[in-house]
Amino acid sequence: MVENKYVYSFGGDFNEGNKDMKNVLGGKGVGLADMASIGIPVPPGFTIITEVCNLFLKQGEKYPAELKPQVDAAMKKVEKFLGREFGNAENPLLVSVRSGARQSMPGMMETILNVGLTSKTIPGMIQKTNNPRFVYDAYRRLMMMYSDVVMEKAAKVEVAEGKGIRIQLEHIMEGMKKEKGYKLDTDLKVEDLQKLCQLFQAKIQEVLGKAFPDTAEDQLWGAIGAVFQSWQGKRAIEYRRIENIPDAWGTAVNVQSMVFGNMGDTSATGVAFTRHPGNGDKVFYGEWLINAQGEDVVAGIRTPYAINADCKSEANKHLPTMQDCMPDTYKQLCAIREKLENHNKDMQDIEFTIQEGKLWMLQTRTGKRNGLAALKIAVDMVKENMIDKKTAVSRVQPKQLDEALHPVVDPVQERSLKPLATGLPAGPGGAKGKIVLTAEKAQEMHAKGQHVILVRNETSPEDVHGMHVSEAILTAKGGMTSHAALIARGWGKCCVVGCGALDIDVHAKTVKVGNVVLKEGDVLTLNGTKGNVYQGEVNLVAVDPEKNEDLKAFLGWCDEISAIGVRTNADRPKDAQQARTFGAKGIGLCRTEHMFFGERITAMRKMIMADTKEEREAAVYGLLQYQKEDFIGLFEAMEGLPVTIRLLDPPLHEFIPAEDKFGEFCQQVGKTLAEVKARAEQLHELNPMLGHRGCRLGIAYPEITRMQARAILEAVAELLQKGVKVLAEIMIPIVGHVKELVHQKQLVLEEAEKVKAAYKMQDLPFMIGTMIEVPRAAITADIIAQEAEFFSFGTNDLTQMGCGFSRDDAGKFLKEYISLGIYAQDPFESLDQDGVGLLIKMGIDKGRSVKPNLKIGICGEHGGDPASIEFCHRVGMNYVSCSPFRVPIARLAAAQAQIKYPREKK
Amino acid sequence: MVENKYVYSFGGDFNEGNKDMKNVLGGKGVGLADMASIGIPVPPGFTIITEVCNLFLKQGEKYPAELKPQVDAAMKKVEKFLGREFGNAENPLLVSVRSGARQSMPGMMETILNVGLTSKTIPGMIQKTNNPRFVYDAYRRLMMMYSDVVMEKAAKVEVAEGKGIRIQLEHIMEGMKKEKGYKLDTDLKVEDLQKLCQLFQAKIQEVLGKAFPDTAEDQLWGAIGAVFQSWQGKRAIEYRRIENIPDAWGTAVNVQSMVFGNMGDTSATGVAFTRHPGNGDKVFYGEWLINAQGEDVVAGIRTPYAINADCKSEANKHLPTMQDCMPDTYKQLCAIREKLENHNKDMQDIEFTIQEGKLWMLQTRTGKRNGLAALKIAVDMVKENMIDKKTAVSRVQPKQLDEALHPVVDPVQERSLKPLATGLPAGPGGAKGKIVLTAEKAQEMHAKGQHVILVRNETSPEDVHGMHVSEAILTAKGGMTSHAALIARGWGKCCVVGCGALDIDVHAKTVKVGNVVLKEGDVLTLNGTKGNVYQGEVNLVAVDPEKNEDLKAFLGWCDEISAIGVRTNADRPKDAQQARTFGAKGIGLCRTEHMFFGERITAMRKMIMADTKEEREAAVYGLLQYQKEDFIGLFEAMEGLPVTIRLLDPPLHEFIPAEDKFGEFCQQVGKTLAEVKARAEQLHELNPMLGHRGCRLGIAYPEITRMQARAILEAVAELLQKGVKVLAEIMIPIVGHVKELVHQKQLVLEEAEKVKAAYKMQDLPFMIGTMIEVPRAAITADIIAQEAEFFSFGTNDLTQMGCGFSRDDAGKFLKEYISLGIYAQDPFESLDQDGVGLLIKMGIDKGRSVKPNLKIGICGEHGGDPASIEFCHRVGMNYVSCSPFRVPIARLAAAQAQIKYPREKK
Repeated sequence: MVENKYVYSFGGDFNEGNKDMKNVLGGKGVGLADMASIGIPVPPGFTIITEVCNLFLKQGEKYPAELKPQVDAAMKKVEKFLGREFGNAENPLLVSVRSGARQSMPGMMETILNVGLTSKTIPGMIQKTNNPRFVYDAYRRLMMMYSDVVMEKAAKVEVAEGKGIRIQLEHIMEGMKKEKGYKLDTDLKVEDLQKLCQLFQAKIQEVLGKAFPDTAEDQLWGAIGAVFQSWQGKRAIEYRRIENIPDAWGTAVNVQSMVFGNMGDTSATGVAFTRHPGNGDKVFYGEWLINAQGEDVVAGIRTPYAINADCKSEANKHLPTMQDCMPDTYKQLCAIREKLENHNKDMQDIEFTIQEGKLWMLQTRTGKRNGLAALKIAVDMVKENMIDKKTAVSRVQPKQLDEALHPVVDPVQERSLKPLATGLPAGPGGAKGKIVLTAEKAQEMHAKGQHVILVRNETSPEDVHGMHVSEAILTAKGGMTSHAALIARGWGKCCVVGCGALDIDVHAKTVKVGNVVLKEGDVLTLNGTKGNVYQGEVNLVAVDPEKNEDLKAFLGWCDEISAIGVRTNADRPKDAQQARTFGAKGIGLCRTEHMFFGERITAMRKMIMADTKEEREAAVYGLLQYQKEDFIGLFEAMEGLPVTIRLLDPPLHEFIPAEDKFGEFCQQVGKTLAEVKARAEQLHELNPMLGHRGCRLGIAYPEITRMQARAILEAVAELLQKGVKVLAEIMIPIVGHVKELVHQKQLVLEEAEKVKAAYKMQDLPFMIGTMIEVPRAAITADIIAQEAEFFSFGTNDLTQMGCGFSRDDAGKFLKEYISLGIYAQDPFESLDQDGVGLLIKMGIDKGRSVKPNLKIGICGEHGGDPASIEFCHRVGMNYVSCSPFRVPIARLAAAQAQIKYPREKK
Repeated sequence: MVENKYVYSFGGDFNEGNKDMKNVLGGKGVGLADMASIGIPVPPGFTIITEVCNLFLKQGEKYPAELKPQVDAAMKKVEKFLGREFGNAENPLLVSVRSGARQSMPGMMETILNVGLTSKTIPGMIQKTNNPRFVYDAYRRLMMMYSDVVMEKAAKVEVAEGKGIRIQLEHIMEGMKKEKGYKLDTDLKVEDLQKLCQLFQAKIQEVLGKAFPDTAEDQLWGAIGAVFQSWQGKRAIEYRRIENIPDAWGTAVNVQSMVFGNMGDTSATGVAFTRHPGNGDKVFYGEWLINAQGEDVVAGIRTPYAINADCKSEANKHLPTMQDCMPDTYKQLCAIREKLENHNKDMQDIEFTIQEGKLWMLQTRTGKRNGLAALKIAVDMVKENMIDKKTAVSRVQPKQLDEALHPVVDPVQERSLKPLATGLPAGPGGAKGKIVLTAEKAQEMHAKGQHVILVRNETSPEDVHGMHVSEAILTAKGGMTSHAALIARGWGKCCVVGCGALDIDVHAKTVKVGNVVLKEGDVLTLNGTKGNVYQGEVNLVAVDPEKNEDLKAFLGWCDEISAIGVRTNADRPKDAQQARTFGAKGIGLCRTEHMFFGERITAMRKMIMADTKEEREAAVYGLLQYQKEDFIGLFEAMEGLPVTIRLLDPPLHEFIPAEDKFGEFCQQVGKTLAEVKARAEQLHELNPMLGHRGCRLGIAYPEITRMQARAILEAVAELLQKGVKVLAEIMIPIVGHVKELVHQKQLVLEEAEKVKAAYKMQDLPFMIGTMIEVPRAAITADIIAQEAEFFSFGTNDLTQMGCGFSRDDAGKFLKEYISLGIYAQDPFESLDQDGVGLLIKMGIDKGRSVKPNLKIGICGEHGGDPASIEFCHRVGMNYVSCSPFRVPIARLAAAQAQIKYPREKK
C-alpha cells in the first residue's frame, strides 16, 4: 500500500472500497464500490477521492505527484479485466467521467461519456460495433459536451451572451439539417456525421483557439480537471452556502468503463424496480429494450418491453419479455434484485445494460414509490423481518399516506389522458360523477343514488348540504383557502377550485370549456391532487382506511412510538365516530356554530333580531334542547375521551342571509324589512376577522354563553347519571385579555351550580380553558393560565393576526411571496415556525411557568400538517387536533416527530 | 407626656401636631394641625390617632383605657379656649366628628355635625343664637344623620329594602309638609320642627328599639365608634383592595368645635381661591354670604357675593363685597391667603367662616384649576421664586395643557347655558361658526372669509378639503375613531361626532333638533371637550401657542428635563412648519399617500388601472416630480432635523371612488366601465386591515417603491448640492418578515446608486428602517434589526393585530369592555401597556440585542398620549411622534416621564 492512496478501484476482481467510505469516495463512488463489494457486476473503473479535489484547488490546480501513477495503475487493472485498452487503436476502451460529492449537488459537472474516442480509436470502435453511425454520433456528442463543459466552462473562457461554443456547434448541426431537408437528428447519415465532426473540430479551433484533444489521455485528464473545477462553480458554491455544505468536503471523480447495450441482439438495456412502485406488490417490475442505449428506454420514442409477464401493460403486452428472450440473464438479474434488496433493506430502482450477453449493473438507488406502495412495502418488509417497526414508520412520508388514503386517479391510465381543464388542487384525491350545477340538484340526484360533482362559480354556506352529498367540488373561481377549498379539505373531499376555463350557465344547465359543451348529468373525473379535470370516466384506486389491515397495523406502530396525542375536529356524532375509526383519541375542537345551521337557524336569527333581552333569551333558549342532544351524541361517540367544545365564535352577520333572501328572513323572524335591513347594516363589519366574534359575543350577550354552558353541562349530567363516561372541556374563543376569560368562566360556573342543583349532583366534573389565537393572549399567557385549565392554539387566527394578513385576502400576494422566497410556504398550510411559532412557544412557556402541567393542544388547520405537527411535538404540546380524514396522517407525523426528536412520553 | 399618646389637640393655643404627622393624624387632621401650626385660626379641636382604630378593631371594639381621659382633657382645652362647655345647658359647645384616613377614601363615614345638641343644651343654644328655628333645624338634621349612620349602619342593624331609619324619618317630614301644604323644607316653621323632632324620637325608638342619645357624651362616643367601624365597611374594604391600601393604616377621628356663619350680620361664610382658578391671574378670587352657612354658598339657592371688586361677575356685581362690608376681617383673610400660599407653595382652595366677627379657617387644600390657570400659576410661581422648574413642570397635567391650547367655550358663560344637543367629544376645544352642510359650501363660504362648521351625517375622504377650512366638524353618526374624529384630532380641530339628535336634510338645507329647525348659515358653538352643541354664539378663550411667552418658557423647561425626543407626524410643509413652532424636533411620520390625493390622484388611478408594467410605470413616474417637490418642501421646513418618510401604505382600493362616480373615473383613466368595475371588484377586500397594503404593495409593484425612493433621494441630492442640511429616513411599512424588508431595501439602494450617478455624488447620506406594526415583526425584531437602521412602532396597527380587533369594528363592544373593566381604557387612545406594550418591549429588547444603538420611535396615535409617552420613555425609545397640535402636550409628558422615572439622557 502506498503512503497516500488517492485512487480506489471498483468492480472487476479488484474492488477496494466499501459502503462506509462515503466521505472519501463520494455518493456515486461508494454506491459502485458497495455493489461491487457484494459481488454485483458493475463496469469496472476507479474513483479519485475527494481529498484530491482540495489538494488540486489549494495547489493552484496542480495534482499531487502520486496521482498520475495511481490512475495509470487503476486504468491498467480495468484494461486487463476487460481485455481492452484505453487509447488503443484496435480494441479501444472508452470511459465515462463523473463527479461525485458526498451528496448530490446542482451546479456540478455531471457526466462526460465516450471519453477515449479519437481519430486513432474511431476505426477500431467501428470495427468492434460494426456501426459507424453509432460511433460518429458518439464522437459528435463527446465533442459538443466536452468542448462546452471542459474546454470552455472549466477553463473559464469569457463568453458573450449566445456565443458559447455549444450554441455555435448546434447552429452548424441545425444548418446542415436544414440544408439537407432533415427534420430529426436521427435523419443524419454516417457521411453527414463524419462531415459534422470535421466542421466541429474547425469551429472549436476557431472559437476556443485550440484543437479538440485527440488523445485519450488528454481527454481523460481534461475531464478530471473539469470535475474538480466545477466544485468552485458559482451555482455549486451558492448551493453549498444555502445547504450549509462545507467547502472542504470536495468532490470525487469516477472514471468508469463504458458498456453499450446497442451492440446487436445479444445486447440490451433496462430499468427496473425491485417491487411494484405503484402498489407495493412484491413483483419484479421493469422495462427493457434489445439493442438500445439507456436513454432509449426512458425517452419515450420506442415502446419499452416488459421484463417479465407480471409487469406487462396495455402498451407492451404483445412485446417480448426479457424472461422469455434471455432467460439466463433474467435469472441472473432476479438474483441481483434479491441481493440488492437484502443488502439495502429497501425497494431499489436499478439500471442495467447487457453488452453482448454480459449483464452489467449501472446503478442502484432507493426506489421512488407512490403512497399505496410505500405503505405496503413498509408493512411487508416488517413482516419479512427485513426492517423493524420504527424503520417502517420512518419510510412512509405523511404525504404518501395521504395519497394512499384518497381514491386517486389511476396513474397508469392518467398518463395517456389530456385534461379538459386545470385548476388549483384544493382537495386531494380523485373522484368521478355527474355534473350538477346547484346544491339542490346535488341533493336530489344523490337521493336517487347517483354520484355527482357539484360545479359552481364559487360556493357559499348555503351550498353546504349539496357539497356534502357530492363526490367532489369544482369551482371556476376562488383560491386554496376559498370556502369550497376549506370545506372540502375539512371533509377529505376531492376538490378543484379556480378553474378559470369553466364557463358555467346555470339557466342553460351547461358548462363550456373552450369548444366543449358539457350538460348537467355528463360525467367528469377530477384529480384533486393535481388540479386536473377530465371529461368522462377514469379509474380510481385507493386504500380503504376502515378495512385495510396493513394500514391498521402500521398506524398501531405509530401510536406505540409517538409522544403527542391526536384528536379530531368534529361537530357531529357521525364525524366523531368516523374519526374514531381513524384512531382519534378525542375531540380537540367542536365548533358549536355549525350546529346552528339547518332548521335551527330560525332560533339563531330570532335571537339576532331580538329587541329586548327577554326576546333574545327566549330565542336562545329555544336552542338549548337541540344543543344538548348534539352534545350527548358527541360524548357518547367518544366514550369518555376528551371532547373540547368551543362556544359560539363567528360574528352574527354570518347568520344573516344575502339581501335577496331578506323577504323569507322577515317572515322567519317576524320583523319588517326595514328592521331587518337596519340590523344587517348595524352588524356589517369592515374587518370581520377583527370584529365582534368569539367571547366578545358571549360578553355582549351572556345568555348565549349561559345557554351553551347549560346544554353542555346538562348533557354531562344526564350521561353521568346513566353511567356513561364523559370528559367535557369547555373552551372560550378569541380571548385576548384574561378578564374576558374570567367573565365567561364566571357565567359557566354559575350554570354549573344550577345544573348540579337541578340534577341533585354533588360533583359535576368538566374543565374550562381557552383558545390562544389572539397574539395578546400568547404574550400574556402567564396571566391567562392562572384562569385556564387548558390552552388550545387556534393557529388560523394566530397566523392571520400574527402575520397581519387574512386568509381571504392574502391570496392576492402570498403566491408571489412564496415564489420570491419571502415565506418558504403558505403559512396557512404549514405553520410559520420562525414567526407565529415563536408566539406559540412563548405562549406555552409562559403558560407552563405558572401551571407546569397545563394541558396544551392545537386545533387550527395546522393540526393536520406534518411539519406543523413536528413543531407541536418539539414545543411540548400534549395533542394536535385535525379533521377526521387527516387523523391517520397526523398519527404518522406524530410518530416520526418522536423518532426525529425523542421526548419524554406522557 | 403620657406613655401612649392617642389624642393630639389642634388650634387654640395648644396645637400639638405638624405637617409631618400624616400617618398618625390622617389627611384631615394633619391639614388642621398644619394650619394651626403656622398661626392660622382654625376652630379648635383634637384628633384621635389612626392607631386607635387598629386597637379598637383588634380588641373587639373596645378602646384602650388611656383614651377616655385623653379625650376629656383635650375637650377641656377647647372649652377653656372658647369659653363654652360640651353638654353645658347655658353655654353649650357643639362639635363635628369626622373620619380622616391617610388618604380620602369612599365608603368611610364622613361628617356628623352639631354633636352635643340635646334636650338639655337646646335652650342654651336658642338663647345664644336667638334663632330657635336654626336650632331645631340643626337638631332634626343631627337626628336624621346620627340615627342612620351611627345607630343603624355602624351598629349593623339588619334593614329590609326601603325600611331604613333615614327613609322613614324622611317620610314623616314629607307627610308633615304635605299636610301643611308646604313645598320647601324652609317653609317649615319653628313649631313644625319642634313637633318633627318629637316624632323623630318616637320613630327611632320604635324602629331601632332604643332612644336617641340625649347626652352630649353619649353622642360623641357613638360618633367616634361609628367612624372606626366604618373602616370595616364593605365599600371601604373594596376600595382598599383595589387601591392597594393596607388595612393596617386605619383612620383617625377629628373632633372639632362647630362655628356658625349664620349668627347674625357679624357672621358670614365663604370659599375662595388664592389665585384665579379660571385664568391663573394673581387675584384673590372668592364668594361669600353674610349670615349664612357654608352649604348656602355652594348650593345655588342664594346668589353669593364677590369677596372683592376683582372677582365680581355679571350676577353679583351689584352685591356687597367682603372688602367693603368687613374691611378688617378681609385684610386678615388676605394675610392668611398669602401665608397659606407661601406655606404650601401652591394655589389654595380655602373655606372660612366668620362667627360674630371672628374669622375661622375651616379648610385649605390645593385648588383645582383649568388648563389656562394651571400653566400661568406654574410659570408665575417660578418667576416669584416660590417653586423650581421641575415642580412647575410636574404641576401642569398634560390634559390641562391640552385644554389651554384649544380655544375653549368660556366656562363662566357656559355654566348658564343649556346644550341644544350632545354627542361624543371627538376633538377637544371650542369653536363657533355658520352651519354648512357640504364640503363644497364650506370651501365657498371660507373663501368669502366666513367661519363655518361642517355638519354631516358622517364624513369621507372626499370631504377632507371642506373639513380643512371649517372651524369645527359636527356629525350625526360615527364614534371616537370615525373618519371625522381621526382627521379632526390630527389637525387639532374641534369636533363632535355621533350627535344622534341631529336630523340633517341636505336638500332642504336644514338641521332639525327636536322642534328646533336650523338653516345653513345659522350660527352654532361647539364644546368639543364635552361634546356639547349650543345654538348661537358663545365666547371662546385660549392660549396662542405661537405668542404666549409663558407657554414658550414652560415648554423650554420641559425640553431641558426630558430624555425622550418629540417629533411630529406631518405630510405637508405647512404642517411641518407649524409643528416646528410647537417645538417638534423632526418628522416621525410623513404619510406619502396623502400626497396622492387632489389633482395627483389621476396618476395614481391610472397606475391602478394599468394593464401592463409599462403602462403602470408611465403612470407612477408621472408622480415623481410632484413627490420630489413635496419632499424638498418638507426637508427645507425641517432644516436638517430628521424626516421619516413612510412609503405607500394603504390598499389600492382606497384610491377608487364610490361606484356612483365610476363614470368620471372612466374618463380620467381612459378605461371602460366594465374594466373599472372588474378592477374594483378584484381589489375589493374582505378584511382590508389584513390585506394588500404596505410593503406588500411595494413588492407587488416595485415601480412604486422605486419611484418614491427616487423622489426622496433626488430631493436629498438637490438640497445637499445647494448646501441645505437634510436627514432623510426612508421607512418601509407593514413589514412582518425580514425578507420583505430586504426586498424593498434592495430597490431603494439600487435607486440610490442611480441618483448618485445622475447627480455625480460620492456620497448620498440617508437611513433605511422599518415600521414595527405587525406582531410578527415585534417577535422577530432581532432578525429584522440586522437589516434596519431604525424602528418606528406603528401602534395603531400593532394594537389592532395584537388585540385582534379593528378600530372600525371594535366600537361595537369596546365601550362595554371598558365599562366592565376588561380594558381600563380604549387601547386605541392609550397604549395597552400590559399586552401590546409587552410586544413593544420585546421588539425593543430584541432589536437592541443585535444593534445596541438602534434608533427607536413610535408614530401611532399613541405618540401624543401622555400615559403612552411615559411608557415609551420607560422602555427606552429615542423619540415619540404625534400630530403637530399634540407636540406641546408630548413635550410636557416627556418631561414628566423623566421626573417620575429618571433615565440616562442621550
